[in-house]
Amino acid sequence: MTAFHARTVALVGLGLISGSLARALKSSQWDGRLIAWGPREPSLKRGLELGVIDDYSLMLSDIVEQADVIVVGAPPIATAEVLSELTALVVDATRKPVITDLASIKGYVVDALSVDYPDFVPGHPIAGSEHSGVENADAALFNGREIILTPLPGTNPTAIETVSAMWALTGGYIRHMSVTAHDAMLAASSHMPHLVSYALTGALERDESDPMVHGGGALRDMTRIAASDPLMWTDIAITNRDALLHSIDQFETEMQLLRTMVDAQDAEALQSYFARCRTHRREHDSILNPLLQSTTEETS
Amino acid sequence: MTAFHARTVALVGLGLISGSLARALKSSQWDGRLIAWGPREPSLKRGLELGVIDDYSLMLSDIVEQADVIVVGAPPIATAEVLSELTALVVDATRKPVITDLASIKGYVVDALSVDYPDFVPGHPIAGSEHSGVENADAALFNGREIILTPLPGTNPTAIETVSAMWALTGGYIRHMSVTAHDAMLAASSHMPHLVSYALTGALERDESDPMVHGGGALRDMTRIAASDPLMWTDIAITNRDALLHSIDQFETEMQLLRTMVDAQDAEALQSYFARCRTHRREHDSILNPLLQSTTEETS
Repeated sequence: MTAFHARTVALVGLGLISGSLARALKSSQWDGRLIAWGPREPSLKRGLELGVIDDYSLMLSDIVEQADVIVVGAPPIATAEVLSELTALVVDATRKPVITDLASIKGYVVDALSVDYPDFVPGHPIAGSEHSGVENADAALFNGREIILTPLPGTNPTAIETVSAMWALTGGYIRHMSVTAHDAMLAASSHMPHLVSYALTGALERDESDPMVHGGGALRDMTRIAASDPLMWTDIAITNRDALLHSIDQFETEMQLLRTMVDAQDAEALQSYFARCRTHRREHDSILNPLLQSTTEETS
Repeated sequence: MTAFHARTVALVGLGLISGSLARALKSSQWDGRLIAWGPREPSLKRGLELGVIDDYSLMLSDIVEQADVIVVGAPPIATAEVLSELTALVVDATRKPVITDLASIKGYVVDALSVDYPDFVPGHPIAGSEHSGVENADAALFNGREIILTPLPGTNPTAIETVSAMWALTGGYIRHMSVTAHDAMLAASSHMPHLVSYALTGALERDESDPMVHGGGALRDMTRIAASDPLMWTDIAITNRDALLHSIDQFETEMQLLRTMVDAQDAEALQSYFARCRTHRREHDSILNPLLQSTTEETS
């Protein structure tokens, strides 16, 4: 594994994910400097007070001049905007920082770039929380989690190595994927499930008998992610529209199939469907619960 | 609060829920005896070895003769069958044990009774797990959870007091409800969410790219209950059909509404929908996570 040689990592946007990356790097053997830029000073100040970062600036160019690696952490649309600005700033400069991002959509972000910058490595850590903000940053967030990189044909291999070395310090593992495969896969494994949780929570909210008052562990888990950041998820739904619609339709086919079985009181079909689901879920237990072997605490 | 005076509690059917009740009673100040009946000896033997029960018999009449309180723990259809048999056994006897059950459906169970037995108190603890079997019994399962009783017009008040006193020892709290209100509420707060989780897991299982391999915390939570006992959930879907179909249709209305917003890329409508869900979920955080105040460990 290549060591991570960057002296200064700059976080462009400081929130839950970038803050967790900062905390993970600070708790690793890496002894570099962490600086941040953001559109709002209070978050940056809070990050400094909490020891998540070492310094910040409200001038993007300040950060760019100091950084060896720049990590953009923002919702997809803002990520695309700031990446365009950043790559335009550095493409003709003599210093060429490695740039990566954390956005859940890769197609939209890559398509929005106005210049080719071979030291940009599109990235996406598969980790999150329904909480947001730097104050919820967690050094263990990426432990055992998949970090997807979607390098482009022209991406510089040394830039990929640098970004991979950074993530290795967080306990995550790297997987490469094409931009299209990433966006389709994420629609199925994350974006559609979020929409399902939102629809469920919306249905319960509209029910005048307030069923959530009687919720147990099932409802706790099924509605947890419906407390996620509304702006972030609006961006995701907008920017990954086609893949998301496809995944929603796959889900709806199954929901209607189950509805038909319930309506017909077809015990045999229901039991076989449920058994197939149990098998599939259990086969993926260790991926979905990567920390269960080492600790009893779950990230909520 | 009335004290729990029963000397012998009999569990008819020994699984996760009845076993957890046994463990909770054993870890309380109550010092009575726990006996069990079941259709299969291995589970009973396992319960005895694990110290969950003190004795067992394969003869239902043995258990009935010794018990002050009988708790029927089985899937809904089996619960209805064994309750009919039990009440027929005791209705003309001189000893009148208090009988209660744990089934998730109350209408089907109550309608199936062939005799009126005023010392039967229909019950349902709102607690569970995707694991099954007595070996997963957990004394803390009912801690902070709602225990619903649905007494009938002729139910004996002292029987209700006895059952309430038993549950008070587990850390759960009692709520009374009509049979119909219970079944409609459970369809919305538990049965429909389980079907949603099954449909989601079914969609992922059918997807050849195997998206679950890339799942994070969102998918972990959204598919957890799809590993629940297939037989139990078939019974529930069959016996609570009408209320479940109604809840599924409420969910489907919301899912289609969201699909339309995604299709139209209506950012304003999506963000407002998501924000409403976040508020509703957060307002119910303390109900859905009753133990978060006292411990960081969650029941998985």
